Amino acid sequence: MQRTVFIVSDHTGLTAESVARSLLAQFESVSFRYVTRPFTDTEEEVHNLVYEINSTFEREQIRPIVFSTLANRALYNQLKTAPALHFDLFSTYLGALERELGQPPTGRVGRLHSINDNGYFTRIDAVDFVLATDDGIGERHYQMADVILIGVSRAGKTPTCLFLGLQYGLRAANYPLAEGDFERDALPEPVRAYKDKVFGLTIAPGRLHQIRTQRRPNSRYASLEQCEYEVRRAEQLFRRVGVPYFDTTSASIEEIATNIVQSAGLQRRIG
Amino acid sequence: MQRTVFIVSDHTGLTAESVARSLLAQFESVSFRYVTRPFTDTEEEVHNLVYEINSTFEREQIRPIVFSTLANRALYNQLKTAPALHFDLFSTYLGALERELGQPPTGRVGRLHSINDNGYFTRIDAVDFVLATDDGIGERHYQMADVILIGVSRAGKTPTCLFLGLQYGLRAANYPLAEGDFERDALPEPVRAYKDKVFGLTIAPGRLHQIRTQRRPNSRYASLEQCEYEVRRAEQLFRRVGVPYFDTTSASIEEIATNIVQSAGLQRRIG
Repeated sequence: MQRTVFIVSDHTGLTAESVARSLLAQFESVSFRYVTRPFTDTEEEVHNLVYEINSTFEREQIRPIVFSTLANRALYNQLKTAPALHFDLFSTYLGALERELGQPPTGRVGRLHSINDNGYFTRIDAVDFVLATDDGIGERHYQMADVILIGVSRAGKTPTCLFLGLQYGLRAANYPLAEGDFERDALPEPVRAYKDKVFGLTIAPGRLHQIRTQRRPNSRYASLEQCEYEVRRAEQLFRRVGVPYFDTTSASIEEIATNIVQSAGLQRRIG
Repeated sequence: MQRTVFIVSDHTGLTAESVARSLLAQFESVSFRYVTRPFTDTEEEVHNLVYEINSTFEREQIRPIVFSTLANRALYNQLKTAPALHFDLFSTYLGALERELGQPPTGRVGRLHSINDNGYFTRIDAVDFVLATDDGIGERHYQMADVILIGVSRAGKTPTCLFLGLQYGLRAANYPLAEGDFERDALPEPVRAYKDKVFGLTIAPGRLHQIRTQRRPNSRYASLEQCEYEVRRAEQLFRRVGVPYFDTTSASIEEIATNIVQSAGLQRRIG
């Protein structure tokens, strides 16, 4: 069974899409085809979209599902004339919020992004920081880090740092653990002074073997034996020095990042 | 006026937070304090959270607002006993979806992330690709790119590519336009063969001056004159060779990325 799902927004539509995917993940035996229509903010665009939804309904003989976030009520009422199951976040929740907060919604589209918005600089600065301190480089910047991830190669450090920079505006550095680092009873020298910012990532050796094999098949680096050795020593190090760590084996980047933010008590720097 | 907003989820809570922030951005004169409680999935955790919401209510003398995504109905019913205005995405929408799709929701927490999930590799591959082709490096990989962003330094190329990689699983390369590139009537040599993948970014000179000044104050690079020159020549190039381009001046990374995906007709590679 397949259903077409329209994601309609006067802005990026990323929130509506995230809601749709979260909800529809609860129905595993249906396959959903997503059609995204961001920046839909004129009568003409909605008119064309209603036509498109109509055609889809006639072709598929089953009504599509529409998830929308339209701040303009007139546009939403126009969209609602299309033959579909409609969910609009704004019309669902804004009424109750208006009553609770005792003031009307502004009706303004999207979030505010003024040219002098500090959020922009915070975020760009965070991304620059992640790139300047990726994979053990730029240790002179560690003092300014919000968090420093350590772990063996391919445990998930870089994508997690990028996510923390982009989504949270956090300055996330990462330092790879390699052979020499396992011989000591202390954190590697470059991060030693920053123990309170250090967070470990670990991974099941079999999974690491699989990931490294995609990168360098049949290398010593990718061998199960080497993966087992590195992971065992890295976890020993985390426990010995008392650094918190998280197992990334079956976690998404979002899950790893959220866990770190939560466990390390970090505060989001952008809204 | 300040209101405390609790974001409660049995998973990362990123969807619930995104919904809350989108809706509450419609009420500009209220300042919202966000408290996030991801991975709340036991009776005990909900019990403690109910207590925390209660204390907040007593301290602030105004009930908090709770946005939740809890797949488990029993936990949600427990949460709802807390004195707050409650919005739960699942209880709002799942009933209607169940009736429409003719099957019950699985009740499973979060999205499925199996160890052999192709999405993981697609995403990591995309992030690796972005890093391997950032700022003009790795041109030998351009053939495998989904999109190649070009523009002057600090027009927003790198963060946008990272967002496209992380959020869409797209292989996004970027190539910086510099002096030598403005003298010709064609795209710079490294990207010339890939014109159908090339997308331009531009920016208002005043804004560019502001951004570059943060990076290298009082340099020729950051001077308004230099910014004006580069932007004018870059836009001339885009028009001359017929490359689509987008003005990033007052856009967020999400807005830039969504625009590119939409305009270039790119397909999301991860769910």
